[in-house]
Amino acid sequence: MDANLRLVIGNKNYSSWSLRPWLLLKHFAIEFVEQSVNLASADAQLQMQTLSPSGQVPVLWVDDMPVWDSLAICEWLNECCLDGKAWPERARLKALGRSMSAEIHAGFQLTRRLLPMNCRARITLPDMPTALANEIIRIEQLWQEALDISGGPWLLGSFSIADCMYAPIVLRLQTYELEVDEHLVPYCQQLRQHDAIRSWLADAYQEVDVIESVEQLYSER
Amino acid sequence: MDANLRLVIGNKNYSSWSLRPWLLLKHFAIEFVEQSVNLASADAQLQMQTLSPSGQVPVLWVDDMPVWDSLAICEWLNECCLDGKAWPERARLKALGRSMSAEIHAGFQLTRRLLPMNCRARITLPDMPTALANEIIRIEQLWQEALDISGGPWLLGSFSIADCMYAPIVLRLQTYELEVDEHLVPYCQQLRQHDAIRSWLADAYQEVDVIESVEQLYSER
Ligand SMILES: N[C@@H](CCC(=O)N[C@@H](CS)C(=O)NCC(=O)O)C(=O)O
Ligand SMILES: N[C@@H](CCC(=O)N[C@@H](CS)C(=O)NCC(=O)O)C(=O)O
Repeated sequence: MDANLRLVIGNKNYSSWSLRPWLLLKHFAIEFVEQSVNLASADAQLQMQTLSPSGQVPVLWVDDMPVWDSLAICEWLNECCLDGKAWPERARLKALGRSMSAEIHAGFQLTRRLLPMNCRARITLPDMPTALANEIIRIEQLWQEALDISGGPWLLGSFSIADCMYAPIVLRLQTYELEVDEHLVPYCQQLRQHDAIRSWLADAYQEVDVIESVEQLYSER
Repeated sequence: MDANLRLVIGNKNYSSWSLRPWLLLKHFAIEFVEQSVNLASADAQLQMQTLSPSGQVPVLWVDDMPVWDSLAICEWLNECCLDGKAWPERARLKALGRSMSAEIHAGFQLTRRLLPMNCRARITLPDMPTALANEIIRIEQLWQEALDISGGPWLLGSFSIADCMYAPIVLRLQTYELEVDEHLVPYCQQLRQHDAIRSWLADAYQEVDVIESVEQLYSER
């Protein structure tokens, strides 16, 4: 692959979908140019209309060809830059990885709405609707099952697209001060200590722009 | 692949996610056993909890291994049963196919909510919120772009996962009596005339179970 890669992402503090392919690129040390859209700016939507076919970030430009949507970008990178090694070889693990990645890609709507990514914040939730708690339980189940089958240390054994797809959840657990089952603590710690995650968080902490709708979600307490 | 495949699906009249991998299996004449869950029954959720890891349909059982979520099932079938031929070979088209399939997998929320699949019904919409109209316009754009690049007759040239992912949209256009751009009419007709779609619709017309929340959406007019 000797094309030029350019990944357009949102604010590191907030843009959970951007983090996913960014982490894959960084983990596998694939060279790319990073371009940011400030989602808090008045003309963010307008900027995204010109930068991305779907009007959303992330989008990866491969020379002049756009690949958009976090999951499609990850699959594209896996095939075109990584010779398939972003998924495990074992059939059972690969099927699980694809299933759990698709599940978070389209699901967990309450987690998205009520626990938006906000790396800088630390929020004690006033209460936890049962349906939201069930989503978190489901995520823990998926992680546990994956780690049980693979033996760890990453979800599917080696670092994979599944770790990228669930990385924003690990960060949200910290933001919303949620405890996971003790068996999952080492996994979460390992992800938070990943060099690329530390660098993402360092950048997020430096950002000054604020998305009001996210910040105000729990500001009334 | 000499495993036994069993696809668990919902009611053909309503279950748009079920249609997607079902159509892929049928188009490529892959043998599988079909198992239905009646989403209108009182214990549907309970049944799905025992039949599917995510508690949702579709799920494909490969012997005793579950692969769930429409998109993951399609990717799995592509790799394990179809030797990659459910995506086109041309890099540009494959990237577009993956991007547009991921876009519908996670997006078009208003289309899902306001135009749920209901094969049997014919409904003249009272009005069309702008945001919903914009989603339909975006879908038409994607189809047109794909057909322009591929030359048709299917979205990416040969029949692919992208056609499966968008098939429920083609059926909804009929249910809600929505006209598409004339350039897209032949594509929609071709899909409706696909043997597998005709057989799906024939089954849907035979079903007697009713999901009240879907039927009542426009019953007040
Ligand atoms: N399904 C898409 C979702 C992308 C998405 O929702 N991106 C957000 C930022 S994290 C965005 O662009 N929001 C602005 C908008 O929708 O106008 C993906 O997986 O990439
Ligand atoms: N992201 C999933 C969505 C599956 C889905 O929403 N399935 C519906 C039927 S079409 C379902 O199982 N609904 C019942 C429920 O959620 O309890 C996929 O692509 O397969």
